[in-house]
Amino acid sequence: MTDLSDDLIARFVSIVGNPYAITDPDEIAPHLVERRDLYQGASPLMLRPGSVDEVSAILTLASETETPIVPQGGNTGLVGAQIPFNGEVILSLSRLDRIRAVDTANDTMTVEAGVVLDTIHKAADEADRLFPLSLGSEGSCQIGGNLSTNAGGTAVLAYGNTRELVLGLEVVLADGRVWNGLRGLRKDNTGYDLKDLFVGAEGTLGVITAAVIKLFPKPRETATAFVAVETPADALTLFATARARAGSQLTACEILPRIGLEFVLRHAEGTRDPMAQPHPWYVLLELSSPLKGAGIEGLMQAVLEAAYEDGIVRDAAVAASFAQSLDFWQIRLLLSEVQRLEGGSIKSDVSVPVGKVPEMLERGIATVREMVPGVRPVPFGHIGDGNLHFNFSQPEDMDREAFMKMWGPVTDVIDDIVMEFGGSISAEHGIGYQKRHLMEHIKQPLELELMRAIKKTLDPKGILNPGKVV
Amino acid sequence: MTDLSDDLIARFVSIVGNPYAITDPDEIAPHLVERRDLYQGASPLMLRPGSVDEVSAILTLASETETPIVPQGGNTGLVGAQIPFNGEVILSLSRLDRIRAVDTANDTMTVEAGVVLDTIHKAADEADRLFPLSLGSEGSCQIGGNLSTNAGGTAVLAYGNTRELVLGLEVVLADGRVWNGLRGLRKDNTGYDLKDLFVGAEGTLGVITAAVIKLFPKPRETATAFVAVETPADALTLFATARARAGSQLTACEILPRIGLEFVLRHAEGTRDPMAQPHPWYVLLELSSPLKGAGIEGLMQAVLEAAYEDGIVRDAAVAASFAQSLDFWQIRLLLSEVQRLEGGSIKSDVSVPVGKVPEMLERGIATVREMVPGVRPVPFGHIGDGNLHFNFSQPEDMDREAFMKMWGPVTDVIDDIVMEFGGSISAEHGIGYQKRHLMEHIKQPLELELMRAIKKTLDPKGILNPGKVV
Repeated sequence: MTDLSDDLIARFVSIVGNPYAITDPDEIAPHLVERRDLYQGASPLMLRPGSVDEVSAILTLASETETPIVPQGGNTGLVGAQIPFNGEVILSLSRLDRIRAVDTANDTMTVEAGVVLDTIHKAADEADRLFPLSLGSEGSCQIGGNLSTNAGGTAVLAYGNTRELVLGLEVVLADGRVWNGLRGLRKDNTGYDLKDLFVGAEGTLGVITAAVIKLFPKPRETATAFVAVETPADALTLFATARARAGSQLTACEILPRIGLEFVLRHAEGTRDPMAQPHPWYVLLELSSPLKGAGIEGLMQAVLEAAYEDGIVRDAAVAASFAQSLDFWQIRLLLSEVQRLEGGSIKSDVSVPVGKVPEMLERGIATVREMVPGVRPVPFGHIGDGNLHFNFSQPEDMDREAFMKMWGPVTDVIDDIVMEFGGSISAEHGIGYQKRHLMEHIKQPLELELMRAIKKTLDPKGILNPGKVV
Repeated sequence: MTDLSDDLIARFVSIVGNPYAITDPDEIAPHLVERRDLYQGASPLMLRPGSVDEVSAILTLASETETPIVPQGGNTGLVGAQIPFNGEVILSLSRLDRIRAVDTANDTMTVEAGVVLDTIHKAADEADRLFPLSLGSEGSCQIGGNLSTNAGGTAVLAYGNTRELVLGLEVVLADGRVWNGLRGLRKDNTGYDLKDLFVGAEGTLGVITAAVIKLFPKPRETATAFVAVETPADALTLFATARARAGSQLTACEILPRIGLEFVLRHAEGTRDPMAQPHPWYVLLELSSPLKGAGIEGLMQAVLEAAYEDGIVRDAAVAASFAQSLDFWQIRLLLSEVQRLEGGSIKSDVSVPVGKVPEMLERGIATVREMVPGVRPVPFGHIGDGNLHFNFSQPEDMDREAFMKMWGPVTDVIDDIVMEFGGSISAEHGIGYQKRHLMEHIKQPLELELMRAIKKTLDPKGILNPGKVV
């Protein structure tokens, strides 16, 4: 546990000024826990700098005094990367919340780390553009955190991960020096790719303070379909059919099982089953074009007709209005929330090569059913990326705590199956604190050695988010 | 100059076997020069390993004996990165030419470094897929080189640079150890992004031996237009108009000046002006969809009509046949070649934020005209990426050598203007040997320090492509 002297605390406080240096335990408390209540951190001090210079001064002092720092954005991370487990100083980026520039000719926006994702969406919209990163937590997550976790979400299929949505970064290094890499260039081959080292590093290599992000034309015509299929294999065939025809106009392809829809219908008021009969699996398909009158509805028809011909569609509902498409999306987006109302839930965030999804699901479900009779598998997510939230809800008649004690064993077998298929045990959430102990298991020693060498090069004193990632 | 003992040469030879260890100066000679005849290298030995194990053994020995190595692929690089300037051993990757796997369900292909880009195109085509990387040298360049330079080309607009086209790598490190990062995952957030360090590192951090690359649906409907405009600013408006309507279906947007077309008409047999009258500037626009009957021609009409309404189109020709679209593309693709037939040519490969292209062109042309009266500017390229090949052909009546002596001064002023606009002096060609002396000028000291620290971490003995990049 880190122990800060009163003198050192006073020096940190003087950098940001009194109102922005939080020492009151009650005020700090919400920043020591996260949404899933999996962890309890501890910290004597939270700093809320208002400028890059202040971030720089904080890290200069932290480096001099070897004081460990945990950067925190909207505190929506799912693997505990933003939690100070050992009394580290919390470095909140929330006050760096300016949109520095919007360049519609270059289709870029320069944003500070603390800008909330939703605010970016609105600013893009006002500029008649789209920033496609879309997450459940977009109302409170901050772009600095999105960049640090290389966030995924439902738009990866067409637009890529956060990594692919950023052109340049401004980063404060462990020793307080500021790297200005805020370039807004589509092509720049002048040396090593430093930017992508900081993206996804979960605050362990530097503190991202600003970024140049890409904007896209706003979709003006969208077709959304809710399609019932027999199996994940059929869902995959539907994906392939849609991708072959729509290419980059296929902007979402999400899978969910019947039980997920049932959970939604049971707990979320006003939702309804898009179909008259129940079906084992559903796929949410979305096609988009920036041009009104581009024939997106016809394209959706062509996709569905081809899928019918393949015999893989049990039923399909195409949204007849914007409101109906929102209804379809609601079902998908409520899945995490309603699962919480069904008792304990053990969660994995995994990816495999796209073609391996059905086999991975089959083996994972069978194995966990043997371990926990009566368990209710609720795997859902981004089938087009090979990325599923492979979740299990507790058996209805089981004690919640007893079930949650199975977290380790259940996620271990899922991880092993995923690794067998050449997959990833953390597709979009990162490693953070939660999965760090697995790194030795999932990485070649050489790969870990390289990562540790890079950590040592960029943060020789180990003050940046210690105990996370590597 | 490196001096290898006979004994050491014998040890290297024994790794690959006699026929694959080239010591005959005549056989080595073509590997010491490049297409533009700008450099003359020297090397006593070229090794042509046939397996990753042999590459590993070569680097193990090189590391033990501190023997410098220059990796070489198709020898098509434009900045001398592949040339052994100081008697280094050439490590040719040409024999690692297997396509290890094609996975159509995952839309990926696993290829060895020595596979020629054109061979990858054909294999993708056979699998009913597209690998979009497209370059002038695709008949001889190798994917390992493309990855090492993060190659660009005409398809970046819709599909991204080579960096965005690769999911996983296999790399032999400086000490001979092999990192197997051949993952074919769309999402994987498990630690630092090692892959992107090696991509674009020009063989200075490791030797890429294989990669998992992304495949895309094959375009089945394409519309190509050759559009005449008054100015680069109008070309930019046309780009914005096309992108706003076609989004990701805008698969190419290239600009060329009248003089470029004239060079083509003068030197390339069978080419003809698509228009009856001459115009100052031309834009080659391409729209594509993987679906036949997707209405791409209608989309092109909508784009051109909107551009006519904006008053920015002087004339436009839409290709009525595949043959005619090839004719349009020929004009663009022949530009480098025909420029060679017009005497000396001073070349820059620059990018700026897209909206800055017209101003950058105007200032660059005016400045160089003052320096070299009668100079013929031939800027062309990827206006949608903000990336131009800002070339100047010699005045008709000037001595070639006298003009070529202006290379340094001319590219220096172009670079300065580009840097003022926050641009890049090497958008797609890399740094290599040619531009290494500029690094101190274009990079913050901190950025250079980070790059050198990474180089030192990954190649502590400095044996990998010494004297290049950093």
